Amino acid sequence: MTLKKILIVSGTHGNEINPVWAVNQYSKLKNNVEQNIEYRYIIGNPLAYERGCRYIDNDLNRSFDLNKYSLNNNIYEIERANFLVEKFGVNGSEPCQIAIDLHTTTANMGTSIVMYGRRKKDFCLAALLQHKFGLPIYLHEKDEKQTGFLVEAWPCGLVIEIGSVAQNFYDPEIVNRFLIIIGSLRDEISKLKNNQITLPTELIVHVHQGSIDYPREKDGNINALIHNKRINQDWKPIKKGDPLFIDMEGNTKSYGGEDNIWPVFIGEVAYKEKNIAMSYTKKDVINLSNQILEEFFS
Amino acid sequence: MTLKKILIVSGTHGNEINPVWAVNQYSKLKNNVEQNIEYRYIIGNPLAYERGCRYIDNDLNRSFDLNKYSLNNNIYEIERANFLVEKFGVNGSEPCQIAIDLHTTTANMGTSIVMYGRRKKDFCLAALLQHKFGLPIYLHEKDEKQTGFLVEAWPCGLVIEIGSVAQNFYDPEIVNRFLIIIGSLRDEISKLKNNQITLPTELIVHVHQGSIDYPREKDGNINALIHNKRINQDWKPIKKGDPLFIDMEGNTKSYGGEDNIWPVFIGEVAYKEKNIAMSYTKKDVINLSNQILEEFFS
Repeated sequence: MTLKKILIVSGTHGNEINPVWAVNQYSKLKNNVEQNIEYRYIIGNPLAYERGCRYIDNDLNRSFDLNKYSLNNNIYEIERANFLVEKFGVNGSEPCQIAIDLHTTTANMGTSIVMYGRRKKDFCLAALLQHKFGLPIYLHEKDEKQTGFLVEAWPCGLVIEIGSVAQNFYDPEIVNRFLIIIGSLRDEISKLKNNQITLPTELIVHVHQGSIDYPREKDGNINALIHNKRINQDWKPIKKGDPLFIDMEGNTKSYGGEDNIWPVFIGEVAYKEKNIAMSYTKKDVINLSNQILEEFFS
Repeated sequence: MTLKKILIVSGTHGNEINPVWAVNQYSKLKNNVEQNIEYRYIIGNPLAYERGCRYIDNDLNRSFDLNKYSLNNNIYEIERANFLVEKFGVNGSEPCQIAIDLHTTTANMGTSIVMYGRRKKDFCLAALLQHKFGLPIYLHEKDEKQTGFLVEAWPCGLVIEIGSVAQNFYDPEIVNRFLIIIGSLRDEISKLKNNQITLPTELIVHVHQGSIDYPREKDGNINALIHNKRINQDWKPIKKGDPLFIDMEGNTKSYGGEDNIWPVFIGEVAYKEKNIAMSYTKKDVINLSNQILEEFFS
């Protein structure tokens, strides 16, 4: 049976340090080859990690739109994205079939999965983790303002997103959650390879619908905070009339839509510059077929 | 009666944004002159605040050692410290008698007071807040590695330190705590000025003893995390044998001293560069005399 390679990336954002620690710890204690599968661990953005910042020139996790960035234009993260794909992409010098990208967030997302688009293999892997731990899944798709995510450059890939934790803050509980996820992913991938899996028949996803910016002054300054009834309430439904923001005079801005929405990344620090106070989703159920198992490593 | 001026500084560290918000909100809703006392609100480090970073060249809250930095050496924060003292210092163009410096921390410090050295007026103001809310007080003194704090450049001054909150994360609960503190400080200062205060007979302080760095490799890299039994346990006593750190192999480094210590700023993100994983204190009781009240505004 052919050796398969799985790429596990941490530090795609340089100030998300807990997954970097977890990966170092995991690879120090466990063999990187298991059941004829090799795990390659790499820091996505080593320079940003060294400096303790999210990125140097451009968000690395928006830099994998390789058509858009075909010219090498001296942007550190574009060069880094090209390097990673040329080395670890399916047509690279050390081809990996799956990419797992480990992130933290300052939002109260708990341990969650983010996936981009509706790829069958992604659904398969996400379903196994959801079935095991009940993890919520944020399915990100059709947002022209946000493209070029790392895992999209591989034929299968998931983001693991854990929070809340401050940027650059080592939290042993967060590290421990990553250790559990890395171990479980490896277990499930081994079972997949050895045909020891029966897929759940469905998985529940929260499908991206859009994002809401902070209310702002004309000069761009934020002029209302996320309401105290909304902050840290990721994944919990918002219904018509529920408060979203509150300004300095105590005026509340409420949700006016008819349909319930489920918010994610509420107040994520790094998204202020992207004009996102929170994103919102609708729940959906995806039906799964065991057929994907046969194709998984083909 | 002479007009007195009080300086309230927020954004001394540019990525501590909740007090800046609270001060803006407070000054928008309340008159800045009350009982013949004028409150001057200012952002300590406006350039760092604009950029969302702690500082530009040098920690502003270590830049007020004005003898040390007598030469203007083009360090932004040194110039800024000089500007603030020349304008708002007791001998400045708009002299303020008290400076209050508002900070947040990624450590789980709750709402707390930090004071520098044993100045009677500081004790008086701190005692009033402690008596009102039961706030813990960190008395920082005799640490040659850390000098040049802002409030030391005024004859009376306290730091209000509230956490945990991530850098650059707006938390309405944290904002609310600052609003309460600003209002209470103004109330107490008004009463002080109008001789309506009887001081508590004593206050309890946690006196700085030293700091503990992370265990590190020879190259400087951190090689053990703050133990999960220690993280977020600020102000809670550590006794001999209690775990402090845990490395990747699960080895624990424990506290070996005979006397109990009380830790503060456990895991504060900004102190990694200062080689501080936590500082530690001993409890002490300070006896107060009402005599200080007569001198307070003299």
